Amino acid sequence: MKLFFITGSKHKFREAERILKEYNVIIGRKDVECEEIRAENCENVALDCLRQLRSEVNEPFFIEDSGLFIKALNGFPGTFSSWVFKKIGNEGILELMRGKEVRDACFVSSIAAWDGKEEAVLRGEVKGYISNKISKEKGFGYDPIFIPEGSRKTFAEDHKTKMMCSHRRRALEKLAKWLRR
Amino acid sequence: MKLFFITGSKHKFREAERILKEYNVIIGRKDVECEEIRAENCENVALDCLRQLRSEVNEPFFIEDSGLFIKALNGFPGTFSSWVFKKIGNEGILELMRGKEVRDACFVSSIAAWDGKEEAVLRGEVKGYISNKISKEKGFGYDPIFIPEGSRKTFAEDHKTKMMCSHRRRALEKLAKWLRR
Repeated sequence: MKLFFITGSKHKFREAERILKEYNVIIGRKDVECEEIRAENCENVALDCLRQLRSEVNEPFFIEDSGLFIKALNGFPGTFSSWVFKKIGNEGILELMRGKEVRDACFVSSIAAWDGKEEAVLRGEVKGYISNKISKEKGFGYDPIFIPEGSRKTFAEDHKTKMMCSHRRRALEKLAKWLRR
Repeated sequence: MKLFFITGSKHKFREAERILKEYNVIIGRKDVECEEIRAENCENVALDCLRQLRSEVNEPFFIEDSGLFIKALNGFPGTFSSWVFKKIGNEGILELMRGKEVRDACFVSSIAAWDGKEEAVLRGEVKGYISNKISKEKGFGYDPIFIPEGSRKTFAEDHKTKMMCSHRRRALEKLAKWLRR
C-alpha cells in the first residue's frame, strides 16, 4: 500500500519518511491545502483536515498537526504554535515565562490517517520544560527552548535525543503499528 | 428591514444596538455558530463566516470580527486576540512589550453584512499605543492597556472616549451608511 503524507513542509516529510522506513512503511508526499480549524487540541485540527481532504485525496494518506503546550501559559501557544512562532519567536515565549517557576511543557504531535477503509487519530507527546534561555545551537521552531524530561539539554542542543524520543516519532510509530493491525 | 447581528456576545450586541439606534437601524440578535478560519486579517474572518451562514440565516444579517494588532509584535495577537487574551491576558502582552520602544497598535473591527441582495465588508479602526502598565480601572479585554492616539488614558480609564471613537463604532457607522445607500 502506498501511503501519502499531506504536508507543505519538506522538512516534516523527510523526517517522517526516515522514521517510517524503519517500520517498512514507504510514503510519498502530496501538498494539498486544507483549512485548519481553530481548536484547543491537535487531534481535532488533524481530524478535521483529514475529513476535508478525504474526497480530494483518493488514496490512503495521513496528515499531522503539532504544537507546544506550556502549562503556566494555559496551553499557549498550543494549536497556534507555528503562527505564534512567526509573530513572537522563542524570545517572546521566554518573555512570557519570565519569573515563572512552573516551566512544564509538552510537545504534541497528532496524526490523522485514512488507510482506504478506516480512519484513526494517533497522538505522540514528549514532556519537558521550557529553558531559561535560548540555546546557542540552531534548531527548528521551539527546539532551542525545550528540554525533554530527564535531560539537561534542549532539543536543539541534543538532536540525537530529539530523533529518538520526539513527539512526532512517537506518533509515527503508532501510525506504523496501526497500519499493521 | 429587520437586521440581525449574529454574535455569541451579549456585550457586543448591546453596544451595537445602542450605536445603530442613533442611525435608526434596529437590530435583533441571533446566536448561530460559525467556524472561524485562521486568517491574517479580520475582514477575511468575517467574510468567510458570512458566507458560511448565508444559507442558514435567511434574513439580512451581519457579523463582526475584531482584533488588536501590535506593530512591534508583527501584528500579534491580531485575529487571534480573544484566544490569546484567555491564555496570557494583558500581563502577557506587557511582558512581550517589555523594553519595546515602538508601541504602536491598532484596534480593528470588521463587519461583514448581507442585506438580502448584496454583501459588504466594512472596516473600522482606531490607532493608538500599548501602555506601560495595566490601568487600574476594569475594562473589557485589552482596553486597560490600549491608549488611543491623542489621549493619555487607556480605553478602560476613559470609557467615554472609547464609546465615541472605538473601532467597533466606526465599523457600525459605515454599516449604517451602507444600509442607506
